[in-house]
Amino acid sequence: MQKEAHELAVTSPFTAFQENGKKEIHLGQHVLAEFFECDPNTLNSIDKVEKYMVDAALECGATIVQKCFHMFNPYGVSGVVIISESHLAIHTWPELGYAAVDLFTCGDKCDPKVSYEFLKKKFNSKKATFSELKRGIIDEETLKVAEKPFEIMQQFAD
Amino acid sequence: MQKEAHELAVTSPFTAFQENGKKEIHLGQHVLAEFFECDPNTLNSIDKVEKYMVDAALECGATIVQKCFHMFNPYGVSGVVIISESHLAIHTWPELGYAAVDLFTCGDKCDPKVSYEFLKKKFNSKKATFSELKRGIIDEETLKVAEKPFEIMQQFAD
Repeated sequence: MQKEAHELAVTSPFTAFQENGKKEIHLGQHVLAEFFECDPNTLNSIDKVEKYMVDAALECGATIVQKCFHMFNPYGVSGVVIISESHLAIHTWPELGYAAVDLFTCGDKCDPKVSYEFLKKKFNSKKATFSELKRGIIDEETLKVAEKPFEIMQQFAD
Repeated sequence: MQKEAHELAVTSPFTAFQENGKKEIHLGQHVLAEFFECDPNTLNSIDKVEKYMVDAALECGATIVQKCFHMFNPYGVSGVVIISESHLAIHTWPELGYAAVDLFTCGDKCDPKVSYEFLKKKFNSKKATFSELKRGIIDEETLKVAEKPFEIMQQFAD
């Protein structure tokens, strides 16, 4: 058992955002990234996918806890990097030049957009979309988790 | 290197759904589940969380490829089960009775709702929400991945 705490438990109890003058608090940001028109050879190399996912975590300031990657036959890589701030996950379809990536972070130490930009470049993706969701929205009055689903925070394509 | 193929590459090239009489094709279903008012002791036990996540994968008919789980100090468990059909991920906040779970599956062999119901019961969650997204939507004409973000397929609370 390791000694570090959930990122949010040590430095930043909750991620707080100022939106329209109102303080908005949620436990995690979850980025769903879609990478289109990527280099198929990169997407079909477990070594490259693993390296880039690990580097993407480090680039955004995350602390890596564990990782596991798997190469499918004939095509595709799946993998996850568990970080102190939650996780990064990837599934690739080299035959379609497509990768689905999840960047789930807690606290405000990491900027998942940094990982997104990094991966977009490394995969040579000509088109990508970025959707940022709020997970675990905190009710300001009770400081309990509001019993409702995620909310979309921002979404863009580039 | 193992021999199995991405689930979608062997039995079911794409997940096809009949919606409003129109055939709709996408590569993966991604369920974002929020479990509220859970048993905090369960959420803070790495052994239980790992067992239930593995069982949840098996219950829905998935093939487990790898898994990694991590216990945080003082609270919380993060973990991922990589399956042939993609992945299951969890992050728990025992102090808030809350768990954020992702069930990402490809092909039509697995029903992520089975895993959702299983975990809701095992975590003794009194309230939960289930959101199912389409990832990697296929353009029917070109059979390429449409260059757009996820779409929400269904969402409910119970």
